[in-house]
Amino acid sequence: MAMESRMPDAESAVVTGFHCRQLTVVGLGLMGGSLAQALGPYAGKVVGVEVDASARQLALEREIVHEATGDLREGVADADVVVLAAPVRSIIDMLEHRLGTYMRSNTLLLDLGSTKQSINRAMRELPIGILAVGGHPMTGRESSGAGDSDPDMFRNRPFVLCPNRRTTPSALLRARALVQALGALPIEMDAERHDRVVAAISHLPYLLSTALVATVANEGENDEAVWDLAAGGFRDMSRLAGSDVRMMGDILSTNTQAVATLLAMFRMQLAQLEAMLISRDDQRLTATLRPISESRREWTAGNGARHAQP
Amino acid sequence: MAMESRMPDAESAVVTGFHCRQLTVVGLGLMGGSLAQALGPYAGKVVGVEVDASARQLALEREIVHEATGDLREGVADADVVVLAAPVRSIIDMLEHRLGTYMRSNTLLLDLGSTKQSINRAMRELPIGILAVGGHPMTGRESSGAGDSDPDMFRNRPFVLCPNRRTTPSALLRARALVQALGALPIEMDAERHDRVVAAISHLPYLLSTALVATVANEGENDEAVWDLAAGGFRDMSRLAGSDVRMMGDILSTNTQAVATLLAMFRMQLAQLEAMLISRDDQRLTATLRPISESRREWTAGNGARHAQP
Repeated sequence: MAMESRMPDAESAVVTGFHCRQLTVVGLGLMGGSLAQALGPYAGKVVGVEVDASARQLALEREIVHEATGDLREGVADADVVVLAAPVRSIIDMLEHRLGTYMRSNTLLLDLGSTKQSINRAMRELPIGILAVGGHPMTGRESSGAGDSDPDMFRNRPFVLCPNRRTTPSALLRARALVQALGALPIEMDAERHDRVVAAISHLPYLLSTALVATVANEGENDEAVWDLAAGGFRDMSRLAGSDVRMMGDILSTNTQAVATLLAMFRMQLAQLEAMLISRDDQRLTATLRPISESRREWTAGNGARHAQP
Repeated sequence: MAMESRMPDAESAVVTGFHCRQLTVVGLGLMGGSLAQALGPYAGKVVGVEVDASARQLALEREIVHEATGDLREGVADADVVVLAAPVRSIIDMLEHRLGTYMRSNTLLLDLGSTKQSINRAMRELPIGILAVGGHPMTGRESSGAGDSDPDMFRNRPFVLCPNRRTTPSALLRARALVQALGALPIEMDAERHDRVVAAISHLPYLLSTALVATVANEGENDEAVWDLAAGGFRDMSRLAGSDVRMMGDILSTNTQAVATLLAMFRMQLAQLEAMLISRDDQRLTATLRPISESRREWTAGNGARHAQP
């Protein structure tokens, strides 16, 4: 038994026993495509549902799915596991518009949406018999197409599972097994806590990045040198501003309260730094910057360690 | 003649004719060490001035300098080119405390400080005969030791030159030749303009990164999951907060006005986004996010193109 913990994740997932007859992935973007690829070995058949015909074609050519359709009802009718890999509002739309009635009883339904409270609320209204769990893989890339899909993108990354009124104990076990089959690390928490955490580490950073790019773009209209001289620091800080606008719009509008709360806390921190700067209180400024700089380095070190030993 | 433009930068630097008898680099950190390495082929002798004995030892062992000393006067006495590679306040201290009297007449003095107005003010008071130019290579790494020095770190990167009252036309030509010998791209501008540009692309981003890390650290005290779930977006946005605190303290305290101005402009941008968010004006929010996202992508594309053809 002591050996088991040393086995690679994929093998331990086999031990935990995830398998399904038909996996249907709704949305063949980067996340959906990568998940379809990663779960292929554990599914009798993989079906993709995607409205974009060229994305369906690509997924078939790259053998990411066995079958692809643009029809949601047809795609999910025979599945025993359905994964929704779409922007948050699309997921809610599907949940509110008959998706539940298209599926067989006892189907496991998992979504990959980036905010969880509003999705969990919509899941509560599903027909009894649909086993639904909210999910959020903590991994992200700038690109959004299935052409960049990578079955290893979930490996050793946290994967949050948020139970709701449609989550039976066995559904949760099955969702955990699915997550482990991806090589990811399942973490259970309630949807409210999830949304607050991601507001801090993801949605607030996106807004800051966007407001920074808007500020620099304004400066750039007066002085082109702004763009010419921008280097690595600006590159890092502006990357999130280039995220998919529709995806981020959905995220912000379904997590408004937590994001607004974190924004208020951020403004306090920024105002403190600004006060020290303007009052030329250099010693206090440096004394304030130091522990912040250290906590960033501690996180990097801890994070590196976690990645090394998953 | 048409061929000349296709020659590698180092060769065209030879054409522009940079050479010196003795180069003295004051400060053997990452910048100073890299510059000493890169200019080695163009100098009869390279001398390093560094108070830290182990950094001196390392620079000698790695043959980054021919000689190293902890004594500023001794180090610069016989140089015909002196480069100051230290935090901004150290540069100002040296300029205000007799550095000018230690050097021979006609010595070219260049600094690599990250803000230029306060340094240029101090350069104005140098003895007539010292040929001083303010400089700022637009390149940066997180690490700060000469152990990571890299002679190619300036290659194809902008290198700002800010003339002042001690900059003769021939001194400026010589500084340009030095910059070209590094493989960097010389850009002349006045110190005030430089400081405003870097406030936008570098100092404001640093403050935002720092205030973000402080906000997330506060959240992390209530809920450790914040640290566990933080992924690539937070990694990018928090990187600058890990910068050297002393260096950044010097930068902020010598560029207060420009940084405070940019902070005020940033707050306006953030407040606009927040108003749309709180009022749940999703369409306007998305319509606002889209051009910002596009201007970021345009910059990346343009920046990539510039790097490909230097």
